[in-house]
Amino acid sequence: MIQLESQASKLDILRPTKTTIMVIGGAEDKVHGKEILQTFFNRAGGVNARLAVIPSASREPGAQGDRYRKVFEEMGAVGLKIFDIRERYQGEDPRWLESLEDCTGVFMTGGDQLRLCSLLAETPLMDEIRSRAIDGKIALAGTSAGAAVMGHQMIASGGSGSSPNKSLVDLTTGLGILPDLIVDQHFHNRNRMARLLSAIATHPDKIGIGIDEDTCALFEGDSQIRVMGKGTVTIIDTTEMSYTNATKVDVADPLSISNLRVHIMCHGDGYDLHSHTMKPGLSETIMPLD
Amino acid sequence: MIQLESQASKLDILRPTKTTIMVIGGAEDKVHGKEILQTFFNRAGGVNARLAVIPSASREPGAQGDRYRKVFEEMGAVGLKIFDIRERYQGEDPRWLESLEDCTGVFMTGGDQLRLCSLLAETPLMDEIRSRAIDGKIALAGTSAGAAVMGHQMIASGGSGSSPNKSLVDLTTGLGILPDLIVDQHFHNRNRMARLLSAIATHPDKIGIGIDEDTCALFEGDSQIRVMGKGTVTIIDTTEMSYTNATKVDVADPLSISNLRVHIMCHGDGYDLHSHTMKPGLSETIMPLD
Repeated sequence: MIQLESQASKLDILRPTKTTIMVIGGAEDKVHGKEILQTFFNRAGGVNARLAVIPSASREPGAQGDRYRKVFEEMGAVGLKIFDIRERYQGEDPRWLESLEDCTGVFMTGGDQLRLCSLLAETPLMDEIRSRAIDGKIALAGTSAGAAVMGHQMIASGGSGSSPNKSLVDLTTGLGILPDLIVDQHFHNRNRMARLLSAIATHPDKIGIGIDEDTCALFEGDSQIRVMGKGTVTIIDTTEMSYTNATKVDVADPLSISNLRVHIMCHGDGYDLHSHTMKPGLSETIMPLD
Repeated sequence: MIQLESQASKLDILRPTKTTIMVIGGAEDKVHGKEILQTFFNRAGGVNARLAVIPSASREPGAQGDRYRKVFEEMGAVGLKIFDIRERYQGEDPRWLESLEDCTGVFMTGGDQLRLCSLLAETPLMDEIRSRAIDGKIALAGTSAGAAVMGHQMIASGGSGSSPNKSLVDLTTGLGILPDLIVDQHFHNRNRMARLLSAIATHPDKIGIGIDEDTCALFEGDSQIRVMGKGTVTIIDTTEMSYTNATKVDVADPLSISNLRVHIMCHGDGYDLHSHTMKPGLSETIMPLD
């Protein structure tokens, strides 16, 4: 019994401290306060964390993996693994599942979300990562392309600088980790409001979430979002949407959408996905969260 | 009596057919269908219109005035006047008021809204134009800079490509023709959502209206907006806004705003400023309005 308790205690330490999925808008600080990455590290177990980095979205996965290895090792990470998957058959190799076994945190880097999905969607490895993240057994973070893949519907690419219209956004299937959301990243930085609106018009059963650079939406429990970082998180809530012409018009025609509820949130603010309410919570300083 | 009736009838013809203030998002078609300019011409009385063009926002007021003269004369305008005001004292010259006397339509061109306001705000001429437009005695249109000046609060300049924050927008006093609105133009074309959100956060008593290029918001009566043109009109309704940090944070800090109601409208859609409701009204073709 004593031995079993000790074993359980050890496992608890290796588990993330809170259920957390971190959706990062790209360009998170890797040099100064590193608040977002430090928070991921903390949530994954801190110095007891066992991290895996998936650099597969990147065209330079080796360099990208090394970059995050350096950041997390400086925080005290030991035994960090790079899941450097460059071919789809690799994601189906059972050795990755073994390698995932003791992980407490998985981090998906930026790059191209289509590349990430084509390599990993519906592989046993990604199915297991999603399942563990949803069950709160690991902390999962994705930045930029690694954020874009979170929804069931994923923005693969798109444009800016024109009226909302269906040709402004290319949607495809993402990893479905947060299936009710359509995520856009580098949001206000790359002027992506019109493309997220265009995506939402054709999928009004989803909630649009636009995340700025060096900013993170933390999903805690089954319905709470918290914002941390230097920019904003924009929520486009379609619950009360009463009309769109999206099903009637041609792809290049301007879109009509009535009754969207929009919240702009910054560091410290929260949002409840069940009640669709924003909970303001101004914090004056940005610091890593426990 | 017969003579008086005839006189009244003649005056009626010279009056605009409907109370109309047209707020145009810039770059309206001047070559092909010219739907928006044709609608202004129709609303000002058609072939009976007596038009004045104010090119004062432009650095090339002569060329700008000639450009619109050509367009409206091709439609059949006679006796068109260019109010080529280049110095503030000119706006105070009573001869402009005399010249305005028989006008049924006034058109303000694009250029620099600060220039337009510095030349004309609070001059007897502009006071009279505003008063006549509000009373429905003339049709008034403004495009680009001529649209920006419509509100009491005016966006003088601003940026894009960053999280909403107060430094993203410079607000000053406009002409106050539609005092409850903050107008932004070339809206989605120049990615101005973040700056309009930033303006609204500091003036939550206003309604934000963003108008795309070759698109027009027509204000009819005291509360009805109709949309015409090739792009969209975005309404940011603050009626239910429940929180902003705008009064508490520094100018460069990200803004937090909860419970905005947003409508994206295209050609044929309407909006009631009193009831804050959008009235969808899909039209398949764009044509000049009577």
